[in-house]
Amino acid sequence: MKVLITGFDPFGGEPINPAYEAIKMMKGNPKLCDLVKLEVPTVFGKSLETIGEAVEKERPDVVICVGQAGGRFDISVERVGINLDEARIPDNEGNFHQGKSIVEGGENAYFSTLPNRAIVKELKENRIPASVSYSAGTFVCNHVLYGLMHLIKTKYPDMRGGFIHVPFLPEQVMDKRNVPSMSLEMICRGLELAVKASVENTEDINYVSGETH
Amino acid sequence: MKVLITGFDPFGGEPINPAYEAIKMMKGNPKLCDLVKLEVPTVFGKSLETIGEAVEKERPDVVICVGQAGGRFDISVERVGINLDEARIPDNEGNFHQGKSIVEGGENAYFSTLPNRAIVKELKENRIPASVSYSAGTFVCNHVLYGLMHLIKTKYPDMRGGFIHVPFLPEQVMDKRNVPSMSLEMICRGLELAVKASVENTEDINYVSGETH
Amino acid sequence: MKVLITGFDPFGGEPINPAYEAIKMMKGNPKLCDLVKLEVPTVFGKSLETIGEAVEKERPDVVICVGQAGGRFDISVERVGINLDEARIPDNEGNFHQGKSIVEGGENAYFSTLPNRAIVKELKENRIPASVSYSAGTFVCNHVLYGLMHLIKTKYPDMRGGFIHVPFLPEQVMDKRNVPSMSLEMICRGLELAVKASVENTEDINYVSGETH
Amino acid sequence: MKVLITGFDPFGGEPINPAYEAIKMMKGNPKLCDLVKLEVPTVFGKSLETIGEAVEKERPDVVICVGQAGGRFDISVERVGINLDEARIPDNEGNFHQGKSIVEGGENAYFSTLPNRAIVKELKENRIPASVSYSAGTFVCNHVLYGLMHLIKTKYPDMRGGFIHVPFLPEQVMDKRNVPSMSLEMICRGLELAVKASVENTEDINYVSGETH
Repeated sequence: MKVLITGFDPFGGEPINPAYEAIKMMKGNPKLCDLVKLEVPTVFGKSLETIGEAVEKERPDVVICVGQAGGRFDISVERVGINLDEARIPDNEGNFHQGKSIVEGGENAYFSTLPNRAIVKELKENRIPASVSYSAGTFVCNHVLYGLMHLIKTKYPDMRGGFIHVPFLPEQVMDKRNVPSMSLEMICRGLELAVKASVENTEDINYVSGETH
Repeated sequence: MKVLITGFDPFGGEPINPAYEAIKMMKGNPKLCDLVKLEVPTVFGKSLETIGEAVEKERPDVVICVGQAGGRFDISVERVGINLDEARIPDNEGNFHQGKSIVEGGENAYFSTLPNRAIVKELKENRIPASVSYSAGTFVCNHVLYGLMHLIKTKYPDMRGGFIHVPFLPEQVMDKRNVPSMSLEMICRGLELAVKASVENTEDINYVSGETH
Repeated sequence: MKVLITGFDPFGGEPINPAYEAIKMMKGNPKLCDLVKLEVPTVFGKSLETIGEAVEKERPDVVICVGQAGGRFDISVERVGINLDEARIPDNEGNFHQGKSIVEGGENAYFSTLPNRAIVKELKENRIPASVSYSAGTFVCNHVLYGLMHLIKTKYPDMRGGFIHVPFLPEQVMDKRNVPSMSLEMICRGLELAVKASVENTEDINYVSGETH
Repeated sequence: MKVLITGFDPFGGEPINPAYEAIKMMKGNPKLCDLVKLEVPTVFGKSLETIGEAVEKERPDVVICVGQAGGRFDISVERVGINLDEARIPDNEGNFHQGKSIVEGGENAYFSTLPNRAIVKELKENRIPASVSYSAGTFVCNHVLYGLMHLIKTKYPDMRGGFIHVPFLPEQVMDKRNVPSMSLEMICRGLELAVKASVENTEDINYVSGETH
């Protein structure tokens, strides 16, 4: 099995992005799978091109994209990406999107095909706070999730893929008031466990999840 | 023009639901539109049947469903409903859903056809905190949003519809710690303005919105 | 009985201060007490001089000072003021205090002599979210609470006094994300009830309160 | 120099207390100081007796008491303890206090004599989120802070002392929603740095702190 794991470069004024910082630290486990790491620009379009090229070259079995969700309290596994770019801030090349389809005429949304709840269960059993999320927002993270699933649906139907959001690092919240964080070690360990759960579960399990709103 | 506005009955242990409490208080404006009010049970399936019957009978131009989002800080206009029932709590008839499609084989998601950002703009100009939301959760609120849009798509293509979430009332947060609320008067006024914006804007406007995650 | 109620002018970049906005709206109840209203500058020292002059002139039985606590969810009645000015922002005349005693050599702290828990009970019974707070911060609000109690202790031992914090108004949180607010009508009504409870209870009651930290 | 550092046993339904868990892991640095560790029962009265006996026996130069502040986002150094026991929950022996003085007729409050802002600066320079807090609540943590400072004032005037609050551990927030946490390693490192700053700074430094409310 081969797993491609991607992380964004910093955006929104932050000097680092915990996603790729944690990915850099991840130890592969050759007995489990080949692990390919990729840094992705926080740019509409270009992010998907970068991922598309790596997917074409590496032909992974599983693609896990990882992004920063500043303000969230735990590692959250995204269930769905929607066909909408809409952002209050420009991406890293100054593109400012409002009400724009990612794929013109494409499906309204795609569900992740990672074993999302199995990942959450694996993390929680290892004492790492985690949950399923039902919105990846409308910035480049959702753009990549939707675009990845569209790519898989249209070109690589046997591939599985999805998206994981991680909190700020402690060093990023030092001068913010009352913003949660998670240690780099714990994020890294969480991603290692997410890879493990993704390799070991080709189908998702039942594990109580859901949001009332 | 005729507008059907619906609100849920209480759920999740709350003695009241601010959605229908506010709808009961709404004053119609006959010069603007006919306003039809409907209370809907917080039950998977039955909620959609109730709405379906009212839509068939009333043939409204616009359907606005309203629900409680306990813990949210403002009136949030939902942009998208996804094809997934997944709840940590049972509905009001004890149905407990996990990983269940709302429409078997249906589209993954539907976007609301209300002028969502025009509604947000209208509310904010009237000093009522409001925003666009990109997830209605996975409980009966999302169920109704997705099901309504499916109904519209398949049977009433000229109808427009969508969903609005409202915060707890002050009386509901009395014994909760650090949970936000909004006065009944403000929620009611917000819904009146949402009806107005929905009647006056057949297409949505551009008004900066979006979530990074 | 005569009650002096004071509210600050706007500070910290806000165009209004909900404290004095609400006080302006308060209706007196001559059967209950004479109500004297006073606007106070958000300035170390000057705020206390202003209050001191009004107290000397009016000789009220009770003094209730009111301030804005942006970010709090309810009306909070302050139990204690400490002998410390320490602020991250300058006051309205540019004074920037760190680690400064309010009264050199004065007591470390004074407890409010309002019937704090009776006020909280009165508000909650009228469906207004309220709680006892055990810190008024270290800016001009705490400065006024400590200074008022010092004045009472040293010059007017029969007078009673204290401090109440109120949340932002909805119009103040329009462009903040996830910040709670309370309607002006509810804040005003809460202050009227606080005056009533203060007149009717010369001693505080027992009403379960407290913070674990 | 000798430093006594104390941590509470678990309370409030939690199976562990991050305070003493972190203290157990702390490595002493004999070149810096002798470090004496003490577990303290979360019980009004008994907690202070336990500390009083250890202080009498060990005659430390500095006493740092540490407690859990579930829901806080960072390591917070308490500036003041007030003469008030008031709790919504019973202590670990079922004592339920409301409106009770800790020392009958004692001072209203004592300020910590740790170099609080020097500690915060030391932690932040080492990338550990930290701040000064101006309320230790009204449960056993505040009880211990006030009681310790009273003991020092009345019996050991050359001793210095104070209190530090630490967040939940990640494993404690697993089934809470949106509650922040900090890794055990980071809490432990934070306490080691607090000891260092306390030994190296006999007086506090100026380092911008303060709360508007």
